[in-house]
Amino acid sequence: MKLVVKDMAIATGGVLIATLNQHDAALLDLHPADRIRIARGKIETIVVVDYAKSERAVPRGHIGLFDEVLQKLHATTGDPVDIWMEKKPESINHIKHKLDGRELTSSEIHAIIKDVVDGKLTDIELTYYVAGNYTHGMSMRETVALARAMIDTGDRLKFNRRKLVVDKHCIGGVAGNRTTMAAVPIVAAAGFFIPKTSSRAITSPAGTADTMEVLANVALDIHQIKRVLKKVGACITWGGAVSLAPADDAIINVEHPLSLDPEGQLLASIMAKKGSVGSNYVLIDIPVGKGTKIESRKAALHLKQQFEKTGKALKIKTHVIITEGSEPIGNGIGPALEARDVMWMLKNDPRQPYSLRRKAIRLAAEVFEMTGKCKKGQGEKLAEQLLHSGKAYKKMWDIIIAQGAKIKSTQDIKIGKYMINIMSPKSGVIRHIDNLCISKIARVAGCPKDHGAGIYLYHHVGDAVRRGEKLFTIYAENQERLEYALEVWKEICGVVINSR
Amino acid sequence: MKLVVKDMAIATGGVLIATLNQHDAALLDLHPADRIRIARGKIETIVVVDYAKSERAVPRGHIGLFDEVLQKLHATTGDPVDIWMEKKPESINHIKHKLDGRELTSSEIHAIIKDVVDGKLTDIELTYYVAGNYTHGMSMRETVALARAMIDTGDRLKFNRRKLVVDKHCIGGVAGNRTTMAAVPIVAAAGFFIPKTSSRAITSPAGTADTMEVLANVALDIHQIKRVLKKVGACITWGGAVSLAPADDAIINVEHPLSLDPEGQLLASIMAKKGSVGSNYVLIDIPVGKGTKIESRKAALHLKQQFEKTGKALKIKTHVIITEGSEPIGNGIGPALEARDVMWMLKNDPRQPYSLRRKAIRLAAEVFEMTGKCKKGQGEKLAEQLLHSGKAYKKMWDIIIAQGAKIKSTQDIKIGKYMINIMSPKSGVIRHIDNLCISKIARVAGCPKDHGAGIYLYHHVGDAVRRGEKLFTIYAENQERLEYALEVWKEICGVVINSR
Repeated sequence: MKLVVKDMAIATGGVLIATLNQHDAALLDLHPADRIRIARGKIETIVVVDYAKSERAVPRGHIGLFDEVLQKLHATTGDPVDIWMEKKPESINHIKHKLDGRELTSSEIHAIIKDVVDGKLTDIELTYYVAGNYTHGMSMRETVALARAMIDTGDRLKFNRRKLVVDKHCIGGVAGNRTTMAAVPIVAAAGFFIPKTSSRAITSPAGTADTMEVLANVALDIHQIKRVLKKVGACITWGGAVSLAPADDAIINVEHPLSLDPEGQLLASIMAKKGSVGSNYVLIDIPVGKGTKIESRKAALHLKQQFEKTGKALKIKTHVIITEGSEPIGNGIGPALEARDVMWMLKNDPRQPYSLRRKAIRLAAEVFEMTGKCKKGQGEKLAEQLLHSGKAYKKMWDIIIAQGAKIKSTQDIKIGKYMINIMSPKSGVIRHIDNLCISKIARVAGCPKDHGAGIYLYHHVGDAVRRGEKLFTIYAENQERLEYALEVWKEICGVVINSR
Repeated sequence: MKLVVKDMAIATGGVLIATLNQHDAALLDLHPADRIRIARGKIETIVVVDYAKSERAVPRGHIGLFDEVLQKLHATTGDPVDIWMEKKPESINHIKHKLDGRELTSSEIHAIIKDVVDGKLTDIELTYYVAGNYTHGMSMRETVALARAMIDTGDRLKFNRRKLVVDKHCIGGVAGNRTTMAAVPIVAAAGFFIPKTSSRAITSPAGTADTMEVLANVALDIHQIKRVLKKVGACITWGGAVSLAPADDAIINVEHPLSLDPEGQLLASIMAKKGSVGSNYVLIDIPVGKGTKIESRKAALHLKQQFEKTGKALKIKTHVIITEGSEPIGNGIGPALEARDVMWMLKNDPRQPYSLRRKAIRLAAEVFEMTGKCKKGQGEKLAEQLLHSGKAYKKMWDIIIAQGAKIKSTQDIKIGKYMINIMSPKSGVIRHIDNLCISKIARVAGCPKDHGAGIYLYHHVGDAVRRGEKLFTIYAENQERLEYALEVWKEICGVVINSR
């Protein structure tokens, strides 16, 4: 059938779709989610059929195409195209099998993931895959196959001559846990190669990418990353600017509405990102505690084992540490406040948060010991030296400059102009600082988009405070946000103080 | 936040969606599948957020609205609107619980179905509901609650003074099984009230609605149906033109890509349609045999029990018969050919297919006996009388005329002009005529869109045939379709003849 292209002037964000007028669809006996092949001259692509009920959207004899398909076909409004019916992708059968509880083979999983990346599966079809994985679980073989498939279908960093490529990853859930930015310069200062890509905040006040963005450009593409690595041996960039394991984003997109996060997918997703940047040594940090992602030590131990198994199968040496995560680490919460904490720490400034320093040293030490750089028990000494000597601080500036600096000195970091101090309502000892509540207040104050917004904590759990003493300051970039954050604080509180 | 409406000039087909520019979405910390409330003056509605990555689709400061939302808000391009963040619907939590294997309460199911009908759930969210029902199954209580919720959220026919409202339903899967059109006039001729809505073909050569459309208008809205019923006591219309149990269509839409049909949903869907038209007596026909939907007698018996239980809970007297369905019923396959068979039968024309007559009499008799119109064993006699006397034929014409006739006499039924006879390749006895193969050939010949296309069978299973004798004729409305159908016949065959 011959049809005329209509540019729908909108992108679908992935899946390749063509919209037919319902009368044309009926003539060809096509139903929504059927597949057709479209040819414009010699250029062809296979797309999913949808149909428009109104003449207004797509008149008879026309075919409505979205940005992704227009680009594939180099087509524009008015171009003539031919269409034919096509079979549905084989991967849909595999998805059905998974939903029926069958374990999938590596090649079946690869077929699904390849079709996801190629925009050949609809959200509905992909949702069934996630539902199948969620309800029936994933075997270790499936998890490894999923990680491999995600690596194979995306961009990759490959380093032939380098033997040691290290990476670290934190499962997340702890406010102010900016340990990646604190540990990477220490590890890099020891001569390691560490290509770090990070995410932006989704539900937290700041992701590593948001925080690093206060100091330097983070939206580097694969070529820019390679250039930075060649120059300084390390980078801290935003993973969203590169296409590493791109299937992961599509999967997260359908997990998000029900907040699903099946374990196998979590493992595969994290390890795929590591494999994509060519890491052969990976340190995983699982913070445990109330309000974090993993609330019990038992669950953390289980996850640790699963990470080690997945790593082994992928030939990535994986070391997992379980850390305390029941209260915020560092004092600043929010991109600029966290960036300032990191710089103060690297600079050995007396205002540095010692909890962040301790954690960064621990993480760097684990890397040194797992890779054999140091003997057991000697890692912390080296990390301390690299910090104390200023080598880690210098390395951080090398990274900042190589990525494109946004500041000239730590003093240039801009904190929100609007602020309010929150005082302790009574004297006593701080028993609990709730991650979720602190995150909520910081986000309402403008995090992560307003880089200068956030919270600065003066005290941590176990500290004695007097009535009327400053507990923390809320910062914002405008008065409205500040007032709204204050209201939220009054409503949910989140700091528990016991009278002595 | 204040935004300006942009008409996206396309309908979503159900779910209410607004597309924001990604920068505006980021400012409000909104993510895809989050909800917002939109107000245009005093008119408000809650919609799902999506975002556009290009300025071209939705520029900053604008909000892209699809037809459904524009209609709700009476809005047009350039109108100013206000938006606020909204919580996600509670029904999403229920869906999560079902996916986790929990049985849902009636009110939870009602909340899900109401949100489906109101366009408040995305396809991804609804897919998780279907996946949950598919993998964990549905209890009888859930099935009944789903049927009730589907009835309550759609249009309804209510008949206060009429006590007996009957309906019949066939599970489907048998080619040429046009028994609804054959039985309805007989039942109506006995004085019963029978408001029959039917579907169009999805995978078969002809649905009841497609076949009836050869004779009369079938796209009647709820008011037109009421008028026809008042006049003649019966109708045979297309269910798609009324909004009976509309949630069903949305659910089928997400089941379709994986061809899922969880039992509970099948039961609820059928019984909801019956409940919507106010039926209090329902006859269900389950044809069993190779190539039909239900292939084993055991599965049919199980389904029968489930139907009876569902009917009891819904206070609809439900009688289920299991019939032979291993070969096509009637001679004609395709809308016009089947319509002609039905009219020949009602008219007592010698060319009538006796298999169709026998089945129509059986079905009408079951209705007469289940409702107490006849004593056990007396139903067939009455049905035979109503047919023989011409009363059923006259009633059919009453229905055709009341709905708006498309023909003046049976001779006006147009069969495809292009035809080819298929001869028996050998002498012997016909052992099997495959429903799926016959359906495939008929569809390739143009069914159901080309009303005149199809197949006319001269023999049935058990008949002796001689080599070179006509087995069947393929009809089409154009030469290409005919040739293509012939090729398919040569490839898949579908008639098994054993030499004696």
